[in-house]
Amino acid sequence: MEIKNILNQLAGLSDGNVGKDFLLTWEKSPEQLQQVFLVAEALRYLRQNNISTRCFDSGLAISNFRDNSTRTRFSFASAANMLGLEVQDLDEKTSQIAHGETVRETANMISFMADFIGIRDDMFLGEGDKYQRQVGTALDEGFSEGVLEQRPGIVNLQSDIDHPTQSMSDMLHLINHFGGIENLKGKKVAMTWAYSPSYGKPLSVPQGVIGLFTRFGMQVDLAYPEGYDLIPEVEQLAGAQALKYGGSFRKVNSMDEAFKNADIVYPKSWAPFAVMQERTKLLLSKDMPGLEQLEKQCLANNAKHMDWECTEEKMQLTKKGEGLYLHCLPADITGVSCAKGEVQESVFERYKVPLFKQASYKPYIIAAMMLTSRFKNPSQVLAHMLTEKHPRIKY
Amino acid sequence: MEIKNILNQLAGLSDGNVGKDFLLTWEKSPEQLQQVFLVAEALRYLRQNNISTRCFDSGLAISNFRDNSTRTRFSFASAANMLGLEVQDLDEKTSQIAHGETVRETANMISFMADFIGIRDDMFLGEGDKYQRQVGTALDEGFSEGVLEQRPGIVNLQSDIDHPTQSMSDMLHLINHFGGIENLKGKKVAMTWAYSPSYGKPLSVPQGVIGLFTRFGMQVDLAYPEGYDLIPEVEQLAGAQALKYGGSFRKVNSMDEAFKNADIVYPKSWAPFAVMQERTKLLLSKDMPGLEQLEKQCLANNAKHMDWECTEEKMQLTKKGEGLYLHCLPADITGVSCAKGEVQESVFERYKVPLFKQASYKPYIIAAMMLTSRFKNPSQVLAHMLTEKHPRIKY
Amino acid sequence: MEIKNILNQLAGLSDGNVGKDFLLTWEKSPEQLQQVFLVAEALRYLRQNNISTRCFDSGLAISNFRDNSTRTRFSFASAANMLGLEVQDLDEKTSQIAHGETVRETANMISFMADFIGIRDDMFLGEGDKYQRQVGTALDEGFSEGVLEQRPGIVNLQSDIDHPTQSMSDMLHLINHFGGIENLKGKKVAMTWAYSPSYGKPLSVPQGVIGLFTRFGMQVDLAYPEGYDLIPEVEQLAGAQALKYGGSFRKVNSMDEAFKNADIVYPKSWAPFAVMQERTKLLLSKDMPGLEQLEKQCLANNAKHMDWECTEEKMQLTKKGEGLYLHCLPADITGVSCAKGEVQESVFERYKVPLFKQASYKPYIIAAMMLTSRFKNPSQVLAHMLTEKHPRIKY
Repeated sequence: MEIKNILNQLAGLSDGNVGKDFLLTWEKSPEQLQQVFLVAEALRYLRQNNISTRCFDSGLAISNFRDNSTRTRFSFASAANMLGLEVQDLDEKTSQIAHGETVRETANMISFMADFIGIRDDMFLGEGDKYQRQVGTALDEGFSEGVLEQRPGIVNLQSDIDHPTQSMSDMLHLINHFGGIENLKGKKVAMTWAYSPSYGKPLSVPQGVIGLFTRFGMQVDLAYPEGYDLIPEVEQLAGAQALKYGGSFRKVNSMDEAFKNADIVYPKSWAPFAVMQERTKLLLSKDMPGLEQLEKQCLANNAKHMDWECTEEKMQLTKKGEGLYLHCLPADITGVSCAKGEVQESVFERYKVPLFKQASYKPYIIAAMMLTSRFKNPSQVLAHMLTEKHPRIKY
Repeated sequence: MEIKNILNQLAGLSDGNVGKDFLLTWEKSPEQLQQVFLVAEALRYLRQNNISTRCFDSGLAISNFRDNSTRTRFSFASAANMLGLEVQDLDEKTSQIAHGETVRETANMISFMADFIGIRDDMFLGEGDKYQRQVGTALDEGFSEGVLEQRPGIVNLQSDIDHPTQSMSDMLHLINHFGGIENLKGKKVAMTWAYSPSYGKPLSVPQGVIGLFTRFGMQVDLAYPEGYDLIPEVEQLAGAQALKYGGSFRKVNSMDEAFKNADIVYPKSWAPFAVMQERTKLLLSKDMPGLEQLEKQCLANNAKHMDWECTEEKMQLTKKGEGLYLHCLPADITGVSCAKGEVQESVFERYKVPLFKQASYKPYIIAAMMLTSRFKNPSQVLAHMLTEKHPRIKY
Repeated sequence: MEIKNILNQLAGLSDGNVGKDFLLTWEKSPEQLQQVFLVAEALRYLRQNNISTRCFDSGLAISNFRDNSTRTRFSFASAANMLGLEVQDLDEKTSQIAHGETVRETANMISFMADFIGIRDDMFLGEGDKYQRQVGTALDEGFSEGVLEQRPGIVNLQSDIDHPTQSMSDMLHLINHFGGIENLKGKKVAMTWAYSPSYGKPLSVPQGVIGLFTRFGMQVDLAYPEGYDLIPEVEQLAGAQALKYGGSFRKVNSMDEAFKNADIVYPKSWAPFAVMQERTKLLLSKDMPGLEQLEKQCLANNAKHMDWECTEEKMQLTKKGEGLYLHCLPADITGVSCAKGEVQESVFERYKVPLFKQASYKPYIIAAMMLTSRFKNPSQVLAHMLTEKHPRIKY
């Protein structure tokens, strides 16, 4: 899209993201989501044309990773840097938080000069999203009580429920791939479970995908072996959204069924909801033998579904055999990262370039979430940048 | 205070902080302390009015945390960022320092491009302050010998003796709370020991408080159970300062006695001086059974003084029952972070907002320590910022 | 040298470093090396005169330290900051790389917004340089396929083969010490092994030195006890270069022989090539008892050569007894960091100032490697900085 068109479209949108956190995509209106996509595209245009996108002279973006991360960590750092903010990581191991400090207190203590806080907390069902909201409430209080000079915006970098920076990047990839958001209507997506020799992978990616993709008139098939359910409320929400936004949502227990005639496939492993619930209980009660037992049992269960692999054969089932393969990465590639995994090597290799492009949108999506949450008139901010043409690389 | 008044007052002060480290408040003249308070207030005004406070285009602020930290770490990062410096952390675990490198060498190696070094080293009595001075001497040498292009300023982020970024923030909180430094004269402060189920807490906070508060004409009571002495030289110094600056300094062995009619109370646990000495010896000789024995004994001793808790009842003893409660945080709150601790939950909750405000001054205090150590004429620097009105958040 | 002279000389050089990684000095032409030296000197002049050297408004410099580092870590951070880039560290422990992700994927995932990647990988013979090239190939692919918007430049922060940021800093130190690159012709250098009570020290420093110093018409003696060979190909290359560039390269088995009449001595411990090969094999096969055995044997072997120490007596053998002592630091100093080591304390102390100066060039060398790899006309870039006179420290 032309940059002028982007700014024009943006100018017509309301400022619904201002002052809001980005926790779950389904809390956002279509207009609010569209604002994020357009700002991300505008930022990408500016950077590609060596135009500085700094809108902060100084300021901090706090990251709080309660689980490992490469992609999202670097995307967050890139987004912050692009806007002129410096990342400060809250490493709970070298902090005094172990002292039994409350979330309310920590949230305020790190936020005196923070413009944003990015949080990854995806380990325990029922915990991650709750934690992010506790931080949010604490910040609201701190701000309204005059403790904080500004209310830092929160960006969900993956919770137990949603992974919006991932699903929004996935979606922006589709928008660009299919030549516009309007072209997604009617496209069939297969979000399916796939076999992996590891266990305990979070549910947030498939949940994020069905929670977001059902809002664009797409035909979303969610496929998994019996027992590998997602959080029931999210599955229900996906169904309701499909109805509302004019697409469809179907659950099937066959990878083939989902792949059949699909425009897009997203085969990705996860642990069953019931297992994650059990695991959370065992972890909280520090039942180590119980955990070991659960892992063994779960891996044995996974092993019954080794045929849930994205093979060349299965890819032939997709629309004209040319369905677009998506993955949040890293994938478990058969014969590369494991003996038997989510995807055949030749499929993965064939889709390497679009896969890496899919990932490349994340820094822009995060920067757009930040910018729209902070500035009332993003269209004007971007127009200023475009006019000033302050070069990112000087000389 | 009006920003014009702040700048006017500043203009009248000498440049005594230039080129000096900030290690102990009692090495600074009243004028030098006042300069730091005023610059901190000016920086706060500028930031609240979205005026950039960058006075560095680039440069590094090194942090060296030899003990855990959240508050001070984020305050240091905030202060550096506010002035335009980037934090680079010296993590002694991933460095080559274990090779047996000398302090002199390391200090120079990290300082080629460093504008400031912030050091926390509070674990061993007789060590932290000594280490900071060794670094300082090494930097003096490196600079005078032409190895370093600039002499980085050192900020004590907590030593075994003093915690100046804490006590100065506490004091700035009091200045704002009571409406001016001149209103502190005659105010009664109770710096008292409080029960905690943990052991080995540093002495630097209470030492920092009595070492600073006795210079403002305040009536300082230091209260602790028999045997919980601070470093004797610091207690003596507090007495001498009270005499010189027209306040009082009294040691009592009763929390009630100290709280009686107090305007300000600061109940906070610490380990007795004698225990810290013993602990340092055992740690240096790696006597693990000895350390375990010491901890057991010390906790048993603490347990005899569980009544040293800041309860609602005790708060009633303070002036009109409305004394201001201070803490450096995190506090051991009874029923929240431990079964029985330093403070009753309802007291802590009632003072939550002023407590968080107390903490909020630290980034400004650190930035002011940096600015006054680097710029000869802070008043002029701040006036420039005020005139230029370069926005922190653009657009 | 006058800054005008530097810029004039630079203007006459071709842009051979543009778009190139800096992996091995011997892959660079003399002109390309000279460009780096001149830019480093210009940057040093600018910084010393408080002129900002930022040529990036924003951007990331990724560091990937697969081995510990202090000096190089801080030099890299300083170089990045000096140019306006923010360091983002790839810590493989807190990333998802353990999942079995390929180098190709990681390289792209961290590079969407990266301008440079600095890599230290010096642990295994045959691995470090290979890894850096794998990253390079992955980035080439990613860039040509449109995945990356820019191709980040790679700076070798120490591999198994070369340590160019070290040897180039060493050389710039010599250029300044002897008053010009033209004065190095005919100077005698003793790069010699020295005793150390530790084992497994990388070969990259001596290899880097003989690989670079033989290109300036110097007389390079490489001395080590029998069996302490470097990688044979690098020794051969040094010989060939000496022939080509009009100096000499000699291998001797006597420290005295090498020191005799030397203008410069560089006594430094390393592990024999054969041991490093064996060690790599054992590490890869996780043969712990084998590794322990090898270490024991190697230390016993080292102990036979305790007389390879840089003593005052040996220094008397150098030209007029005034040879310049070099070391990459930290050194094993007899009676300081170990009972018996590479150098006598009085020698080290006497050369402390030049040693620290030697280290002080590294930030500038790294910044110059970055700048010349990114800008076609460094002379023009530097001239702009000089004209704009944007102050690093404002006011």
